[in-house]
Amino acid sequence: MQSGVRPVYIQLRDKLWQQIEDKAMGSQERLPSERELAGLFATTRVTVRQALGQLEAEGKIFRSNRRGWYVTPERLQYDPSQDIGFYNLVHQQGYTPSTETLGKQLTETPLWLAQLSGLVQGAPIYHIVRRRSIDNRCVLVEHNYINPDRCPGLLSQDTDHSIWQLLQSKYALSPHKRQIEIYPQALTGLEADALHVNQGSAGLFMQRLSYDDNDDFLELDFEYWLHDALKVAVQVGN
Amino acid sequence: MQSGVRPVYIQLRDKLWQQIEDKAMGSQERLPSERELAGLFATTRVTVRQALGQLEAEGKIFRSNRRGWYVTPERLQYDPSQDIGFYNLVHQQGYTPSTETLGKQLTETPLWLAQLSGLVQGAPIYHIVRRRSIDNRCVLVEHNYINPDRCPGLLSQDTDHSIWQLLQSKYALSPHKRQIEIYPQALTGLEADALHVNQGSAGLFMQRLSYDDNDDFLELDFEYWLHDALKVAVQVGN
Repeated sequence: MQSGVRPVYIQLRDKLWQQIEDKAMGSQERLPSERELAGLFATTRVTVRQALGQLEAEGKIFRSNRRGWYVTPERLQYDPSQDIGFYNLVHQQGYTPSTETLGKQLTETPLWLAQLSGLVQGAPIYHIVRRRSIDNRCVLVEHNYINPDRCPGLLSQDTDHSIWQLLQSKYALSPHKRQIEIYPQALTGLEADALHVNQGSAGLFMQRLSYDDNDDFLELDFEYWLHDALKVAVQVGN
Repeated sequence: MQSGVRPVYIQLRDKLWQQIEDKAMGSQERLPSERELAGLFATTRVTVRQALGQLEAEGKIFRSNRRGWYVTPERLQYDPSQDIGFYNLVHQQGYTPSTETLGKQLTETPLWLAQLSGLVQGAPIYHIVRRRSIDNRCVLVEHNYINPDRCPGLLSQDTDHSIWQLLQSKYALSPHKRQIEIYPQALTGLEADALHVNQGSAGLFMQRLSYDDNDDFLELDFEYWLHDALKVAVQVGN
């Protein structure tokens, strides 16, 4: 199970990995250009690109639209059983959250949502699309579907902060039961564009169905995360 | 936020998706060939390939080495707080688990493992590599690193079943505390080859560090899953 001599691009990957581990390059710091790296390590640009591709697949570096390669920040740690909301989670881990509303509308409940939520197909539903960032790096696009009967006038509120804090303070609503699902899914369409990644890039999908204490539907949340921005971290036993 | 006319390949994707949803094609059933699909839907093979690529990214179908496209089985549901082991989990959800040992050896603890486990660098460690399947579909490659002081002779045991059941029945060992991390990671090297996917394919990585009731290191487990085989599913509140 031992391998022999490591390919040249893997050796270069190891050196760059070590520099990142040693904090010679910090979080969100820009790497030297591919040409500069080829010079620094006396190798070809093909080899440099292979090494960078490997580090990208491992989530160690990321590409920002035509502006080069950057060191990926530590993944945000998320324990689904402690589902405290994006703002609290990001703050708790010492980072700065921000949120930008991309669109909001009152629309009609489509069939798939009626099936998931128990609402009547065609019934009014709020649909809010937001992009959320950690330390100014866009990491997820979120779709919220909220029952408007429970929070009339929500769309005229400021949705650039925590929606759950808003629901709690303005409407005394808080989720009692939540069903959470998380799995890898490629980023496509609007989500890929809003996160500045290529169509079909690796991503992480999270779905959260929230009910009140009467088991009535409150909210459905679809989150499309960059592949390298979050990890599920759970401790069992103590 | 509404789109206009959907592109032709997305319309084809929708039709195939609906056939799978309606169980017109069942789990692990082979799709018609690309040529047949082009004929059936009166479209080009380019469009067929785009539609299949989209369904693959969504985890709805998968490609099996040069043998065509198949309907992806339902994802196994995994709640990290109920970490009952692969065998129990697969059985519980009505599927058939199987395990194949790819290699096992007594080796020396490398630096990174010494740092993770608290073992001394260079101390003996068991390293076992296994491939695990659900209903005969290979879904993960697992690396187990186990402290041999706790289970002498483990390598001469049959490791083609549950290692945790073996540790419990032969050595009266069971994990008290576990730290579990889960995040997307591309499949490369040995893991990609053993799972019959292209190097760099999307995957899901799981790390599990287990300690006994004295907080002593028992085992480290690295699991490399296909991107479409597992979902984290957690219910909060009741």
